Amino acid sequence: MKILFKNADILVGSNFDVLKNGFLGVENDQIIYISGEEPNEKYDIVKDMNNKVLMPGLVNSHTHSPMVLLRHVGGGLPLHEWLFDNVMPVEEKLTQNDIRIGTRLAMMEMISTGTVSFSDMYFEPVTQIEEITKAKMKANIPRPVLSFDPEEEPESNERFKESIELYDNYNLAHNGRIRVDFSIHAEYTSTEKIVRAYSLEAKKRNANVHVHVSETKKEHDECKDRRGKTPTKWFRDLGTLKTSCQFAHGVWLEDEDLEIIKENDVTVVHNPTSNMKLGSGFARVPKMIDMGINVTLGTDGTASNNNLNMFEEMHIAALIHKGKQNDPTVLSAKDIIKMATVNGAKMQGRLNSGLIVVGYKADIIALDFKKPHLIPNLNHLEAIVYSAQGSDVCMTMVDGEIIYEDGNYLTIDVDSTYSEIEKIIERLYEV
Amino acid sequence: MKILFKNADILVGSNFDVLKNGFLGVENDQIIYISGEEPNEKYDIVKDMNNKVLMPGLVNSHTHSPMVLLRHVGGGLPLHEWLFDNVMPVEEKLTQNDIRIGTRLAMMEMISTGTVSFSDMYFEPVTQIEEITKAKMKANIPRPVLSFDPEEEPESNERFKESIELYDNYNLAHNGRIRVDFSIHAEYTSTEKIVRAYSLEAKKRNANVHVHVSETKKEHDECKDRRGKTPTKWFRDLGTLKTSCQFAHGVWLEDEDLEIIKENDVTVVHNPTSNMKLGSGFARVPKMIDMGINVTLGTDGTASNNNLNMFEEMHIAALIHKGKQNDPTVLSAKDIIKMATVNGAKMQGRLNSGLIVVGYKADIIALDFKKPHLIPNLNHLEAIVYSAQGSDVCMTMVDGEIIYEDGNYLTIDVDSTYSEIEKIIERLYEV
Repeated sequence: MKILFKNADILVGSNFDVLKNGFLGVENDQIIYISGEEPNEKYDIVKDMNNKVLMPGLVNSHTHSPMVLLRHVGGGLPLHEWLFDNVMPVEEKLTQNDIRIGTRLAMMEMISTGTVSFSDMYFEPVTQIEEITKAKMKANIPRPVLSFDPEEEPESNERFKESIELYDNYNLAHNGRIRVDFSIHAEYTSTEKIVRAYSLEAKKRNANVHVHVSETKKEHDECKDRRGKTPTKWFRDLGTLKTSCQFAHGVWLEDEDLEIIKENDVTVVHNPTSNMKLGSGFARVPKMIDMGINVTLGTDGTASNNNLNMFEEMHIAALIHKGKQNDPTVLSAKDIIKMATVNGAKMQGRLNSGLIVVGYKADIIALDFKKPHLIPNLNHLEAIVYSAQGSDVCMTMVDGEIIYEDGNYLTIDVDSTYSEIEKIIERLYEV
Repeated sequence: MKILFKNADILVGSNFDVLKNGFLGVENDQIIYISGEEPNEKYDIVKDMNNKVLMPGLVNSHTHSPMVLLRHVGGGLPLHEWLFDNVMPVEEKLTQNDIRIGTRLAMMEMISTGTVSFSDMYFEPVTQIEEITKAKMKANIPRPVLSFDPEEEPESNERFKESIELYDNYNLAHNGRIRVDFSIHAEYTSTEKIVRAYSLEAKKRNANVHVHVSETKKEHDECKDRRGKTPTKWFRDLGTLKTSCQFAHGVWLEDEDLEIIKENDVTVVHNPTSNMKLGSGFARVPKMIDMGINVTLGTDGTASNNNLNMFEEMHIAALIHKGKQNDPTVLSAKDIIKMATVNGAKMQGRLNSGLIVVGYKADIIALDFKKPHLIPNLNHLEAIVYSAQGSDVCMTMVDGEIIYEDGNYLTIDVDSTYSEIEKIIERLYEV
C-alpha cells in the first residue's frame, strides 16, 4: 500500500525544518519520499493536506494507561496517601477484563491526541499486548518487579519470572510494534538481591529497564537514610545501569546523580503535570538537556494528571522551567518537540522512529491548522508547543497505517468500549 | 424567548454543587429555573443535554485580544526585549481595520473555548466595541493611558481625554454587555500628575481601573529605585485604589503590597502562562486566596501565551502552585473555577453574572463529556480543571443567546474573517 500526502507543511528531519506545501510518500510501514516536488511514481491513495501540518507522532514515555479507570481518584492528596490509601484499594479490585478495557480507553485518548507509542507500567501485560496489537499502536510493555523480603531469592519471586518470560515470549511482537521492557517499580519497593539478579537478566538481553527514581523528596531522602546513598547510586551499584535504562520523574536527582545518568546513557522521563499535581516538584530539565542527557516526556497515569494528552504535556514542560528559572530562553520549542518524539523513540529502542526522514517508520500525525488559535502561524514549532491542542490532531498513522482520521477510530469499537467502561465503573465505585 | 436545557449535569451556585440530570430554564437574558424536576411552564426551545455539563461561562480577566495578529512574535525573549524590540514595531503598523479583524479572530477563539466575557487593554476601543457588540460577547474595554513627560497636564494628554470620553459614551452599552474600564498601562509608563488626576476621574465615576502591576522583578525593583516605593504603594498614594481596581500579574507583590491590596479590595489577575513564558515568575496566588483577596484568571495577549484558552489557563494555574510549594493541597479545583468565573465577573462589575443561580444573567457554557479523556467522571470539578479541554465546549450562551453551538459560530462570519486575516498577515509580515 502506498499513500501520498500532498500540500502539507512537513516537519522534516532532526531539526524539524518546515517544508511548506510538500509531498510525503509512505509505502507499507516506511517513509519513502519527502519533497517539495510531486513524485513521479503512482500512489494507491493521495490525501490533500491543505492547511495541515505533518509531524512525527508523539511518544508518551511514562504512563500507567489502565489507570484511566481511576481518573480523579485521590485528587488533592500527597503521593504516599494518594497511592496507598486511595489508588491501591481500587487497583485491588481490577480484573483482567478491566485492564483490557482500560487499556483500550486509554488508547482512544492517546490516538486522538497524536500519541503513536507509549511506555507503560501496569498489571496484566499479556492482556495489554493483545489490546495494543488490535488497536495497532506501538508500546513498550513490562511486567514490573517488586520485592519486599530481603532474603527472597529470584526463583521465589513470581513477578521476576513472569517479567523475563514476558520478554522472551513477546519482545518485538507484532512486527516490532510491541517491545517488552524490564521494569523495577522503584527503590522503595525493591530488595538488593532481586534488583541485582534482575539487572543481570536485563543486561544479558540488552533490554531496557523502566524504573521510578527520585520522584518525591521523601522517597529520595528515605533511600539515603536506608541505603546510605541516592536511588541512582543504589541502582548503579546493583548493576541496573549496565543496560539501557529509563528513570521516570527524576525530580530530586542530585548533581552527582546526573553525572552518573549521563555517563551511563540513562534516559530521564519528565512528567511535569504529575510532578506538580502530587506536589513532588520540578525536575531540573534544562540542566539535564544542557548536559546532553536524553530527556523524554510522559503523562504518568491519569489519577495524577488527569489525562493522557501529550500536547498539554509539551505545553506545560515548555512553560514551567522558564517560570522557575525566570528565564524565557530555557527550553526552546524544538527541545520540547524532540523530547516528545525522537528522544522517546530512542528510549524505547525504536531507532528508526520519531522523525520524518526517508527510511524511517511512518509514525506520523497531522494537525489541522485552520483553527482560530493557530492563525496566524508565524512559527510552526512555537504553534505546536504553545498554541496547538490535542484536539487539533486530525490523523494518526502508525507504521504506515492510519488508525485515526477526522474524529474516527479505525481500529477501536468506540460504542462497545464506552458501554463496557460504564459497567466497570459501576462495579468499582458502586455509582 | 424561553430555552430549557434538560438532562444536564449542572454546576449550581457559588459552591458549584452538581445537580445531576437537571433542568435549567432561561428567559431572555436570565436564568429563571434550576431543578431536578421538569418545569410546568412551556418553553420555546428544549435542548437535550445528555452527557453534557453546564457551567458558568468563563471570564478572561486580562488580555490584549487583537494581539492574536502577533501570535508567536518574539518567542523566547525576556519581557522588555520582547515588548520594545519585537512587539511594538509590529503594533505600529496596525490599522483600525486590523484591530477590528484581530478582535474578531480573538473572539472566535474565546467563544469556542467557553469564554463569555473578557477584560481587554488595547488600541481603538470604539472599533473593538462595535465588533464585540456584533459578536454578542461581553467585555470590559478601556482606552489605556500612558504618560512620559512629568510636567504634562491632563488637558494635554490625548489618551486621558479619550479614555474619559469612552467611558462617558459607551459604559453599559449594548444592554450592559459592554462596560468601559479606566486603565493606566503601568507605573513605568506613567507620571504622577496624570495618574493622580486620572484616578480622581475614575473615582468620580466609580469606574474600574485596569493596570499592569509588578509583572517582572525588573519593573518592580526599578519602581522602588525611581519612586522610593513599590508600584502598589505608588498607586495607593496617588489615589488609584480609591475606586475599584484590578492589578494584572502581581508576580512580585510584597507582603505589604498584599495587605494594601486586601484593604482596598483590589483584584489581582493571575496570568500563569504569560508569566512563565516571559520568565517573569509565579505570583503568590495561594497566599492571596488565603488572605481573601479576589484573584481572577487571564490569558494575557497571545504573543506571550500563545492562545486565549481559559481551560488551559485553569489547568496550569491549578498545577504550578502545587509544584512550587511542594503541596498538592493548595488551590482546589473549586478555587480555580471560581477564579475563572464569578471572581472575574465581580471584578468586571457584573455582580449578577458568573454563577448558575436563578435571577443571574444566562452566561452559560456546555461541555461534551462523552470524550475518552472525560470518562470516567468521578468528580466534575476535577474533570473540568484537570482533564477538560477548551475544545470540549459545545455551546456558549451569553445573556441568554446562544452564540456558538456544535462548532458553529452564530454571530461571526468565519470565512470572511479568515480571508481578511490572511491579507493582514501578508501586509504585516510580508509573507
